[in-house]
Parts: sequence; C-alpha cells; structure tokens
Amino acid sequence: MNGPLKVALLGCGTVGSAVLRLLQEQSGDLAARIGRPVEVAGVAVRRPQHHPDVPADLLTTDAHALVTRDDIDLVVEVIGGIEPARSLMLAALESGKSVVSANKALLAEDGVALHAAAAKAGVDLYYEAAVAGAIPILRPLRESLAGDQLSRIVGIVNGTTNYILSRMAETGAGFGEALAEATDLGYAEADPTADVDGFDAAAKAAILASLAFHTPVSAADVHREGISTVTATDVSRAAEIGCTVKLLAICERVTGEDGNESVAVRVHPAMIPTSHPLASVGGAFNAVFVEAEAAGQLMFYGQGAGGEPTASAVLGDLVAVARNRVTGAAGQGPSGYADLAVRPMDETPTRYHVSLDVADKPGVLAAVAQEFAQHGVSISTVRQTGRGDAATLVIVTHSAPDAALSATIAALREMPAVRGVTSVLRVEGLS
Amino acid sequence: MNGPLKVALLGCGTVGSAVLRLLQEQSGDLAARIGRPVEVAGVAVRRPQHHPDVPADLLTTDAHALVTRDDIDLVVEVIGGIEPARSLMLAALESGKSVVSANKALLAEDGVALHAAAAKAGVDLYYEAAVAGAIPILRPLRESLAGDQLSRIVGIVNGTTNYILSRMAETGAGFGEALAEATDLGYAEADPTADVDGFDAAAKAAILASLAFHTPVSAADVHREGISTVTATDVSRAAEIGCTVKLLAICERVTGEDGNESVAVRVHPAMIPTSHPLASVGGAFNAVFVEAEAAGQLMFYGQGAGGEPTASAVLGDLVAVARNRVTGAAGQGPSGYADLAVRPMDETPTRYHVSLDVADKPGVLAAVAQEFAQHGVSISTVRQTGRGDAATLVIVTHSAPDAALSATIAALREMPAVRGVTSVLRVEGLS
Repeated sequence: MNGPLKVALLGCGTVGSAVLRLLQEQSGDLAARIGRPVEVAGVAVRRPQHHPDVPADLLTTDAHALVTRDDIDLVVEVIGGIEPARSLMLAALESGKSVVSANKALLAEDGVALHAAAAKAGVDLYYEAAVAGAIPILRPLRESLAGDQLSRIVGIVNGTTNYILSRMAETGAGFGEALAEATDLGYAEADPTADVDGFDAAAKAAILASLAFHTPVSAADVHREGISTVTATDVSRAAEIGCTVKLLAICERVTGEDGNESVAVRVHPAMIPTSHPLASVGGAFNAVFVEAEAAGQLMFYGQGAGGEPTASAVLGDLVAVARNRVTGAAGQGPSGYADLAVRPMDETPTRYHVSLDVADKPGVLAAVAQEFAQHGVSISTVRQTGRGDAATLVIVTHSAPDAALSATIAALREMPAVRGVTSVLRVEGLS
Repeated sequence: MNGPLKVALLGCGTVGSAVLRLLQEQSGDLAARIGRPVEVAGVAVRRPQHHPDVPADLLTTDAHALVTRDDIDLVVEVIGGIEPARSLMLAALESGKSVVSANKALLAEDGVALHAAAAKAGVDLYYEAAVAGAIPILRPLRESLAGDQLSRIVGIVNGTTNYILSRMAETGAGFGEALAEATDLGYAEADPTADVDGFDAAAKAAILASLAFHTPVSAADVHREGISTVTATDVSRAAEIGCTVKLLAICERVTGEDGNESVAVRVHPAMIPTSHPLASVGGAFNAVFVEAEAAGQLMFYGQGAGGEPTASAVLGDLVAVARNRVTGAAGQGPSGYADLAVRPMDETPTRYHVSLDVADKPGVLAAVAQEFAQHGVSISTVRQTGRGDAATLVIVTHSAPDAALSATIAALREMPAVRGVTSVLRVEGLS
C-alpha cells in the first residue's frame, strides 16, 4: 500500500463535520476498501475560530490555495450555493483533482461546464449526495440502469415540504400553521423559500432528468410550483378521492404527436393515490420512484437530508474516486448524447382534480362538462354532491396538455353557475 | 468510435432472449453510452432447433469454444446452475473475457474462486441480476455505501414465496392451497423446492452478506428454513399482533459479548409489523431493506424476477464492463478484507412469537413464564385470552440466542399445563 491519498474539505458545517468524523472513525476500513489510506490534508472554512474540533493546522481560509495545492488528490465540496463553490470546483478540476460534491444548486445550474472541466482534466466529478441524501439514486441511474430505457421518474426529494404536507394531512392544519411547526422543530430553515417554493426539488429534478435521459437539463428548464398555495381543503379533497398530496419532482420522456421525443421536467404539488408506493413516504423521508421499459417499476427510499446520511453518500463517492485514482482510471461522466428537447409545461400532458361549488340546478353539470370539452379536455370521473341550492362537483380529468387544463380552470371561474373553484391540483399515478 | 465489442451469450431462455432483444432494440443507445457498438457474436444453447428466432449462424452447441474464441470480448452467462456454468465462466475469465452473470447459485457457492480468476486475469465479473432481479442492490452496496458501515440487510428476495405468503394472508388459505394456486398461475415452478425451501433466498443472502460485510459468505454458511411449515394459524396469529408473515433473508453484523464482530446470515419466515416498509411488499415484488450507521434506513424495491427485469440488470452490468473494456480499466472486485467469522444460528440473537393453548387455571402463566426465565429468555409481551377451561397465551420475547428460544419451545411442549403449541415464528423489525 502506497502513501495516503490527500483530501481537501471545503466547508465544515453539518455535513462537513460528519464527513470528517467518519473519515477518521473508518480510516482502517476505508484504506482496505480503497487500497490506500485517505488523509484529510486541509479544511477550508470562513471562520476558523468556529471550528475548535478541527486540528488548527488543517484549517485555512484560503480555499483556492488549498484546492490547487500540489499534494491534494481529492476535493470534497460541501459549501453549497453557486459562488465561491463554482470557482473552487473549477479550479480543483483544472488542477487535476477529482471532486466529490453535495451541491445540487450548482450542479443543476452549471453541470455541463463542470463535467466538461472534469472530462478535459481526465478526473472524476461525483455528486450522489446532491439528490435525496443517503439514497443511492444517481449511481443506479448512471450505471445499473444504463442498459435500459427510462420512461419516468417521480420523486419526493424535499424533506421539509414532505414533513409539512404530512402534518397537514395528519392534523388538518393549513400551510402556515404546519410551516410554523416545521420551523419550530428545525425541519424548516428560518428562510424556507428554497424548500417551500420548490427550488431545491427543481435542482434535484434537473440532475435526475439529465442522467436519466442523457440530455442536459438545467434548473431553469424545470417547471416549478411550491406548496405555499396548498390549502387544507386541497388536502381533505385529496383524502376524499383516496389520494394524498405530495410535492413531486417528475421527469418524463414524452413522445409528441409528430413522433419526436422530448423530456418534461416539473416540480409541483399533486394528489397521488394512497395505494401508490410514494404515498406512504412520510415525514422527512425521501423516495424516488423509477419506471423503466425493461426493469419496470423501482423505488428507492431513505433519508434525504441530515449530516450523517449526506456524509454517507459523500464518502461512497469518495471511495469511488479514490479507487479510480489508485487504479489510474477515471469514471465516465454522464453522457448528453440524446440531447432531447425540453418540453414546455404548457405542452406537457397532465391530469387535474378540480372541486367546484356550483348552483344546484338543471344544466349546470352539462355546462361545466361543455367547458372542459371545448378545451379538448376529457373527463375521467365526476362526483356531484347536492346540499340545499348548492352542489359540489369533484372532477378528475384524463390526460391533456397542461395549458388546456389551466385554460379550462380560468374559463370555469368566469361561469355564472360556478360560485367558486375550491380546489385545483394535478393528479399523478392514477391508472 | 472503434469496431464493435463482441459478446457471447450463454443460454437463451427467458432471460437470454430478453437480453438478445434489448441488445438489438437499443443498439444505438448502447453504443452511445459505451463509446463503441456492442455486437452479439455467438449464442450457445443446448438445442439450436428450439431457437428459430436467433440467426442460425450465431447458434452453437459448443459453449466452451465460444467463450474462448479470440474475437469475443464479453460473456453473458444466463444458463444458471452450477455446471457447466462454472467451467464456462472460469474458461471465459481465464481467456481474458469479462463476464456478466445472473447465476445466484454459482456465485453463492463459488464466488471466491470466480472472483480470484477475474482478478488474476484483470477482467470484470458482475452479477447484479443474481439478486432481486431488476433492483439495483449489489452496485449500491459495493459502491454507494462503500464509505459507510452496514449493520443489517433484511430482504424479501424470492417472489414465489412472497406471492404464496401474500395469498395466504389475503385468503386465509393454507400453504398447500396457496402453492397450488401459484403453480397454476406460473408463479411457482413445477418443482418449487428451490423457492419454497429457501435455497434461492439463501444464495442471494450469501451474496448480499459477502458484499455488505467484506467477508466471504457462501450458501452453506446460511441458516435456511422454508415456508412449507407456515400454517394458516401462523398467518392469522401474525395479523392479531399487527404483523404479517414474510420469508426474510437477513444479514447482520453481530457484536459478541467478547466484543468480537461476526456476521449472521439466515433465511426463514418471520412476522414483521405491518408498519414496516417491507410489510407492504406484496405479490411477486422484491425489496431489500438496508441499515447503515451513517445512511440510516434505506429500501430498494422492484421486480425481482422475469425475463425483462432480469435482462435490464444484465444489460446495466454489460454497459459497465463494456465501458471498462473501452477505457482499459477493470472494476475492483469485492473485497473480503474484513473476513469476519460466520456466527452459528444457535448463537444468533432472535425474537420469537409463541402461541400456546393452556389450561385456564391459576399458576399456568407463572409456570410458562418460569420456563422462559430458566432458559434466560426475557418476555416482551403476553396476551392471555380465556375461553371456558382453556386459555390462549400469545407471547413475544425479547432478543435471545436462537438456541435458548428453541430450547424453551421444546420444554414448553413437555409441560402438562400446555395443551398445544399452536404457532411459533420468529419476529423481526419490532422496536
């Protein structure tokens, strides 16, 4: 066994400290699995005085100097965010270091450029921890399913929103109340925008779609809606039709009428049947449901966040890139050969659940049904419940272009017989 | 792009023909993903006249000549069984061909020798399809979790027995009736021994344990009990305590009283709580539940058998070994560096559920409890239901060495106050 492989760690927050601890605790096992010991040679942080547990001689504030140091073999980036992470990762790759990252935002924004830098330098860029924490999903997509054709990925990839929606379903609370509870318990950040508005899930969706469909997809390509507009009524309406509300990241291969294939990537809240394997994924857990032509349906389930689970994924990647360093190989980067077009949300087929308060008089159902028909939307089920002079209509549509569905909803709101549109949510996973 | 990589296919049954079809249908995609086209250069079968769909010039009955042919790069073995598969795989590896196999029985019996041959020749031996069909589980264990410490794997890895047990739970049928139904529907083979008696699951458990614990484990090391002794009473007793009966493959790292670590690997029917993620894995589906120190709980779910799902796993491996061939690298084989002892079943900690018919008179419960205590087994819960002069005792124990539990059961059968031991099954997954 030769001398140790030297690792530079960028960032030492929750994930970084877990990585450091595990590297130390498991040094013997890791050396045996890699074929050489691994040694942390430097830890770049902004405020060294905040890290009394890290040996002082390892700490530095000059991250750029650290990642370009000649003796460094591997760089672990757990700073997060776009800058300075991007410049540091590019500098590391260009200096011939393999990089392991947990940075979903950066990979989703600039993955193509980062992969190009890795390929040019003949080094590895791995980021299993960026999507769904400890759950092995990127490697299975890139490798295990490399001989199959993926048709669809539906993921619960954000624990904060899943916790909030789970609590809304359990307690009947509204969004605001459930968010306040999540914040109190530390499941939501003080500024919950990235989670609640779907930015975090959209970044993960972009990464999943890129790998699944061999097509560069960036966060800007992802249609994104958050959960702040989900109401207690939406949640109870979902229960009435045997569904539950989840924030889903959906990546699909769609064949257009012209026979051309494209990919549709979107994040939005949706009703799914309680019998669907994703429906029982509760609290802060994550799960990714995959449909492939030959493999059929697969699901990957586990902890999507937290220091230790994320560190597990980082270390798995670290072992992989370290092994490659030892054998002189570099893993193949993801291929973008298919380079499919990204389908706009308006043209993406979806299904809607719509609840309407209407006047209970003859002809109203016919008029409502006519409005759907005029927009080319066919109805799957209607349930009408009368109460006095009013009635509730609960409609689930068949699949139609999303624009036709939203235009139908807009038109319904203008109908005199419709007193209110009380709940509109997309429905996924119905057969 | 250079000339095609040439593949020899050994066996052309359900899985083999699916592999052939997918290789043809996806040739463009596979070439793009690998960097070179892949071409089937020969198909070895026993009776060529039974394969009218395969081009005649590819068919051969001389498998040995095929796998040692100079122009062959990769060998796919889907014959199954020990011989001639073993000799052919060894010949292929020794001739410098990388091998992809779906052969759980052979890998579980002779994995060490096969891996040694692959390492000596500097080629790859991959077999994702051998465990849980299409579900990516071996690659996540070998790579994604390579930086973590696995503590436990609990898998439903045999679809036939899972179908039979699911039907027993749904219909109240006994084992024989459910097996007959499974046979009629093609879910069970004419000779169901390999499935029903747990041989298939034991082979998979050996493979999982070897990779998870970096320790050579063969099928002979696995404690194995099948499901033919599971009764309708067992299934209804399980339901009464909020559990369901599954055939489980369990691989554990056990720390003995001396502080030494060992691995315990076993296959047997067990009750698990209906709230456990594995409990809802129904019918012919498979799932593998993994516990790791940092990653926490993970579950992998999907189709465990069938031509297309198994072929998906074979092709994923084929792409991996083909990429390695193109880049000149060879994947690292599994490491056996930890080389832990295999713990005998008698010394493996388990928990039991026991249902007893007893005389309903004072002192019986005390006498029964005393019997457990004498064997050093502590009781977790007891439920006593009286009916006339008889009572039913339902006991769930805490964890104890399996031998102590089975000795307790034997002693209970001898107690005058015990009229019958109506159900004994191990319990897993209780907190």
